[in-house]
Amino acid sequence: MEAYLDNSATTKCLEEVKDIVVKTMTQDFGNPSAKHLIGVYAERYLREAREAIGKTLKVTEKEIFFTSGGTEADNWAIIGTALANQRMGKHIITSSVEHAAVLEPMRYLESLGFSVTYLDVDRYGRVNLEQLRQAMTKETILVSVMYVNNEVGALEPISEIAHIVKEKNPSALFHVDAIQAYGKYRIYPKKTGIDLLSVSGHKIHGPKGIGFLYINEKVKIKPLILGGGQQKGMRSGTDNVPGAAGLGVAAKMAYESYEEKWNHLLSLKKSFMEQVGQIENVTFNSLPGEEGAPHIVSVSFEGVRSEVLLHALEERGIYVSAGSACSSNKKQTASHTLLALHMPRQLLDCTLRFSFCEMTTMEEIAYSAQTLCQLVPALRRYARH
Amino acid sequence: MEAYLDNSATTKCLEEVKDIVVKTMTQDFGNPSAKHLIGVYAERYLREAREAIGKTLKVTEKEIFFTSGGTEADNWAIIGTALANQRMGKHIITSSVEHAAVLEPMRYLESLGFSVTYLDVDRYGRVNLEQLRQAMTKETILVSVMYVNNEVGALEPISEIAHIVKEKNPSALFHVDAIQAYGKYRIYPKKTGIDLLSVSGHKIHGPKGIGFLYINEKVKIKPLILGGGQQKGMRSGTDNVPGAAGLGVAAKMAYESYEEKWNHLLSLKKSFMEQVGQIENVTFNSLPGEEGAPHIVSVSFEGVRSEVLLHALEERGIYVSAGSACSSNKKQTASHTLLALHMPRQLLDCTLRFSFCEMTTMEEIAYSAQTLCQLVPALRRYARH
Repeated sequence: MEAYLDNSATTKCLEEVKDIVVKTMTQDFGNPSAKHLIGVYAERYLREAREAIGKTLKVTEKEIFFTSGGTEADNWAIIGTALANQRMGKHIITSSVEHAAVLEPMRYLESLGFSVTYLDVDRYGRVNLEQLRQAMTKETILVSVMYVNNEVGALEPISEIAHIVKEKNPSALFHVDAIQAYGKYRIYPKKTGIDLLSVSGHKIHGPKGIGFLYINEKVKIKPLILGGGQQKGMRSGTDNVPGAAGLGVAAKMAYESYEEKWNHLLSLKKSFMEQVGQIENVTFNSLPGEEGAPHIVSVSFEGVRSEVLLHALEERGIYVSAGSACSSNKKQTASHTLLALHMPRQLLDCTLRFSFCEMTTMEEIAYSAQTLCQLVPALRRYARH
Repeated sequence: MEAYLDNSATTKCLEEVKDIVVKTMTQDFGNPSAKHLIGVYAERYLREAREAIGKTLKVTEKEIFFTSGGTEADNWAIIGTALANQRMGKHIITSSVEHAAVLEPMRYLESLGFSVTYLDVDRYGRVNLEQLRQAMTKETILVSVMYVNNEVGALEPISEIAHIVKEKNPSALFHVDAIQAYGKYRIYPKKTGIDLLSVSGHKIHGPKGIGFLYINEKVKIKPLILGGGQQKGMRSGTDNVPGAAGLGVAAKMAYESYEEKWNHLLSLKKSFMEQVGQIENVTFNSLPGEEGAPHIVSVSFEGVRSEVLLHALEERGIYVSAGSACSSNKKQTASHTLLALHMPRQLLDCTLRFSFCEMTTMEEIAYSAQTLCQLVPALRRYARH
């Protein structure tokens, strides 16, 4: 049996996504900027994808901009708004558990003279709202907090954050990295007060190399990639029609049978936590049930090095992640997210992330949990010798 | 009959490219940053693609970095080297006929205090080497000139430029936008003295949304997109495995049966120019034979508006471009390239680009030329009324 439990690293493409990618690569392969019919046909795919995505967020298609993925969307949202609004102030607030695609642009902005506040989190990775309230000033131009943490599945209090931001400084922008949340949660940026939202295609069974940034029409932002003026001059480069079309299909399908898929994910998580919770000296870094994301469970197995357990599971056809596989840092350094949780030192190196998708079956969960119940005590005995 | 003569805007994907894209989307779909087998399998595709590309250029696979396309590669090469080397000087040289993906980053750098010299070109779009010689100073950190011009097919004197750059200032870098040249010419950056080279996938029957930048290992360059540290920290974001794998296949195949394809393109061009040259008051903005690129012919049809002719051709199944379709600027403004050629004013708005690929047939060329021979005089008569 096999169980791919690394869906927060990447997911398998849907058949329907593959089909539209193939069609736009080999048949309707035009350049949307071309003035002839073949260009016009290609452009339709872009418009339809923007409309499908816009519908899921209840925003207009004009507010959807395609990027090469979640990382570019995060970079653009942060650097683009900071540079466009720096006359209003040079202070930014983010959390200490953001993805590197957010944290590295923050460090770049610090090198340009911006000042960045990194909010602390509780032991499950949720930001400190009181600290946010204190940190907001008239100089704050941007707040960036993720919707769901990629390593432990923390569900950040996005509505409360939006409320505090708008109350303390109505001109500050609120960016949300929703890369692990889009498709799992119904997100309505305008209702919630989110000004910019980053999404990645390959986390929702769409193609790699594509993502989008929602930008509220009132937001002032500079482009990151310059050239031929595609996407209203905001993101140049020949439009990636197959990527965009595939993302459009994946976005639409992510919200079909939504409740059913949501309940399925919750059941998988519940079952997994119950079974794995039977093992001695196991610590969950994710909250159970709806208090945390339904598809991510982070577990520390005291006394078992994550790398060893990861490969022991791999040998049994179970694929998981140590910390976050979104980072290519293959050296064994402690994850900044796990450090921010103030986890006991001896657990830092004993933590695995299990991430599910709608296609994960209860049988795969049972197999994985049973395998863990056998492996963990055995590896502990081995480690003691 | 149909004739797609807009291959410089974009090309149709090869079957072999489509096959590997499908395989890496649906089967070997892993994230190369993951530590388990599924990640390892995915990583192999990246390595094989880099190796295939490296071979065509006679460079090491370590010097190949994937980007989201030619535009990002150009942006990165220019902004990344300028920011990394500004202590050596703040002067850059480019040509007046570069693609917007080069010119717009130049304007951005000007806004940061860099000074940019734009070299003049002759009536076929070839840069003035004497002017380059004069412009080079000790402050010059970067020279960026395209290999083949996208609008008129001018073949720039790349070897001579490299020679002048290295003679005048050995520490200056030489970047070449080879987006219209790669696959058509055998390009060996190390032998020629090219430090950075940009290539796009979809111009060589590869996927859209992928390209690469060759960066000589000695080049100092800053990353443009920051995050998880993929590609040795130089270009973050989950690796676009299907895109990279597809590009690897397209690159390899572009150089298979090279002489045969080259001769075929030259025959197409010769035949097209001979037949279209029969029409009265026609001006070629491209040099014949090997003096210009073998796949691009720019023609001005005096007295016939390009937009009108483009759509008349479209009705007959012939798809071409007015100026460059790489620019999404659909307003009827004169192309900066055509302006730089000092073309007579009345021809600016009467110019079409015909661009071929290896799959273009002699029959398609004959059909297109015959159609032009009928349409152009007819449209001129109509315009006079």
